[in-house]
Amino acid sequence: MSTYDLIVVGSGPGGYVAAERAGALGKKVLLIERGYLGGVCTNWGCIPTKSLLNSAKLYHHSLDGAKHGVQAASVTFNLPDAMTWKNDTVKTLRSGIEFLMKANKVETVFGEAEFVDPHHVKVGDTVYEGSYLVVATGSSAFVPPLPGAKLEHVLTSNEILDLEEVPESLVIIGGGVIGVEFASFFSMIGTKVTVIEMMDEILPMMDAEFAKLMRRELKEVDFHLGCKVEEITKEAVFYTDAKGNKQSTEASLVLMSVGRRPNTQGMEKLGLDIDRRGLVVNDRLQTNVANIWAIGDVNGRSLLAHSASRMAEVAICNIFGSKEMRMRYNAIPWAVYGNPEAAGCGITEKEAKEQGIPVKSETVQMRSNGRFLAEQGKRASGLVKVICHQESGAILGVHLLGPYSSEIIWGASALIEAEMRVQDVKEIVFPHPSVSELIKDACFALDHSL
Amino acid sequence: MSTYDLIVVGSGPGGYVAAERAGALGKKVLLIERGYLGGVCTNWGCIPTKSLLNSAKLYHHSLDGAKHGVQAASVTFNLPDAMTWKNDTVKTLRSGIEFLMKANKVETVFGEAEFVDPHHVKVGDTVYEGSYLVVATGSSAFVPPLPGAKLEHVLTSNEILDLEEVPESLVIIGGGVIGVEFASFFSMIGTKVTVIEMMDEILPMMDAEFAKLMRRELKEVDFHLGCKVEEITKEAVFYTDAKGNKQSTEASLVLMSVGRRPNTQGMEKLGLDIDRRGLVVNDRLQTNVANIWAIGDVNGRSLLAHSASRMAEVAICNIFGSKEMRMRYNAIPWAVYGNPEAAGCGITEKEAKEQGIPVKSETVQMRSNGRFLAEQGKRASGLVKVICHQESGAILGVHLLGPYSSEIIWGASALIEAEMRVQDVKEIVFPHPSVSELIKDACFALDHSL
Repeated sequence: MSTYDLIVVGSGPGGYVAAERAGALGKKVLLIERGYLGGVCTNWGCIPTKSLLNSAKLYHHSLDGAKHGVQAASVTFNLPDAMTWKNDTVKTLRSGIEFLMKANKVETVFGEAEFVDPHHVKVGDTVYEGSYLVVATGSSAFVPPLPGAKLEHVLTSNEILDLEEVPESLVIIGGGVIGVEFASFFSMIGTKVTVIEMMDEILPMMDAEFAKLMRRELKEVDFHLGCKVEEITKEAVFYTDAKGNKQSTEASLVLMSVGRRPNTQGMEKLGLDIDRRGLVVNDRLQTNVANIWAIGDVNGRSLLAHSASRMAEVAICNIFGSKEMRMRYNAIPWAVYGNPEAAGCGITEKEAKEQGIPVKSETVQMRSNGRFLAEQGKRASGLVKVICHQESGAILGVHLLGPYSSEIIWGASALIEAEMRVQDVKEIVFPHPSVSELIKDACFALDHSL
Repeated sequence: MSTYDLIVVGSGPGGYVAAERAGALGKKVLLIERGYLGGVCTNWGCIPTKSLLNSAKLYHHSLDGAKHGVQAASVTFNLPDAMTWKNDTVKTLRSGIEFLMKANKVETVFGEAEFVDPHHVKVGDTVYEGSYLVVATGSSAFVPPLPGAKLEHVLTSNEILDLEEVPESLVIIGGGVIGVEFASFFSMIGTKVTVIEMMDEILPMMDAEFAKLMRRELKEVDFHLGCKVEEITKEAVFYTDAKGNKQSTEASLVLMSVGRRPNTQGMEKLGLDIDRRGLVVNDRLQTNVANIWAIGDVNGRSLLAHSASRMAEVAICNIFGSKEMRMRYNAIPWAVYGNPEAAGCGITEKEAKEQGIPVKSETVQMRSNGRFLAEQGKRASGLVKVICHQESGAILGVHLLGPYSSEIIWGASALIEAEMRVQDVKEIVFPHPSVSELIKDACFALDHSL
């Protein structure tokens, strides 16, 4: 029987990073994957959606270039070509992970992991023994037991990535990040999109003011908030609206994006505590079974690819590293990659209120910014909000809606991690012209003093 | 005679920010401008070039969209339309500054400032008295006394912004930021561009490896390094190449971008010290005359718009603020907005060596990054380099070449300002997928330990 220092189950952005980091420390590591290297993120999530969104944005720019001096005749969107580029991207990244595993001497086995006991995992007929076990099995799209939910035209975010034709109409059930990104993509390429959301606003992690602007900016998308879907038929989606009236929307395609569930199946023999969110872990990412650690979506603490990767580092540091490390959740950024983009890091005002933290905040309009104006024009909209502690001025939250948001936001994580205050940010030199300057503007709006 | 707490001469990104900040502190401020509000940056520099470069990038994307699924029958570039958009942008920003001045109760006078003595400035027939004087008169393009330098087709970065037709060929003398940005712009819109640079590499502030890649990425531009221009005629530019041979290049247009000179004319009566770079200031931005402060290009310490704005804040803080503040130059970012973009903050390895600072550095390829691959493809090039102190691991320099560089770089300023170390950056959560993640990758390459 082959024995390992570490067995990692699942090769998404949690699992492969755990394997990589442990391998880099010279540990003997086995990585087990039932599908493709990279998991949902690489194969059906972050990466393919960003590839397709980029294509759609290019299409949008080509249609809209005349005012910038770019004239194009008969611009059309070819979905199969966009899909080919997307598939190439995914394959390249998968090979990259394969290379990374080899470079760090990680052994990889493909197949369904069968958890025998806390030290043994079986794949096919082979049993592997490990001193430590990192469970990084991820999550799956949840399909609620609605009448019609299993009809052929009802897809999850997995299947919709293999479409060959632009659908005429699409109803998206659920206005979270996945729902909104697909809404943006399909509306840009000409599909009539309707989003039906049960809550009274889309994008629950987003500041309410920003979520409202996001809906307004997604002009072609029809949003129905506070609505409960009752039934799906071949022709339409039936729902009860916020006032209790029965409504329906025709749809040639339906995307189910109401949430994700942790993949905890088959772990019965391990004796792990499981709650509503997934495998229960402490802030070191250890489960109740001392040698088993759980990272990424399967523990349900933060369902983001980069959270999974960070959890991987924290777990491996605690298992094999030089110090004890705790997972911090206060400076994890998120981004929505539609058109427009949005991103945030830290708390919203609503969260501050719920947590009883006294805060101040200022919002600035992007149209006061040179680069934004030069590229988007004076009729475009975008917002930047900075939230700080009322007394100390410590930066607690940064929220962006507009171009480059997803590439600007990492600096906000740095500010929060470094416990910088508004007056410190005012001393940072931001490059001009850049959209990022608006963060400094918001800080000066919070405090004009010098 | 009207008296003021502060007279600011020049309304560029130094002067208008100085006026704004002093106004916000309740001071009585006069701002004198001989041309347009916003100075070179808004009217002939940062802003118009970024507007035009954005148009050229959109054109490039439209031409190149097929692989992403975007097909267009005929794509053409209309320079007058791009110029109209650019002019609108400039006008909007100018109005923005006008509004900002009014909002902060700054009085504005248009006309040439005549410096009478350290407390008096004359515009036309009116003399204004000020307790303090901030000189923010900027710089002008230097035109060397070459034979032919005054021919009609030899332009500076000012006049070239009013072209109505795409030139067939363009020789750019000087491969600094201005030269390279125009090289990128004109080569993208179909002009045959040649850059003649006296030094042995373009972009002197850039890491040598990055500058070389920049030349390679600007495929359509013909670079001649180590060359000395001897004469310009109506038909050609004559120069001596690196080997001492006489050469010439035909050109329908010539851009002179060999450097800029501080605007120190007419200040004789003030008794100010002037050196090769411009007005001499201490690290509080004060000149040798106690009530006169000099900020921005005119002091020659850092010829960047955002440096001027920061100097404005430092000077106003020292004049009217609550504490003494010194201007720090170690964390000022720069960016080149061509295609590709590049940006940096902090020192290069060469500078570290010259200053005797022991450093370590690691460079990572952008093509290992998910978002870069999804948008640029596996054949595209880009680099990220992180430089840290050999012993402490403190981040001393971050260099980027590739998409989003100009919007990512502000976070590097934050890292350097906060004196973060490689091991601290490894604990920051970067959003996935984003190009910014490569900074973390470079930090892990510097130090694999956990």
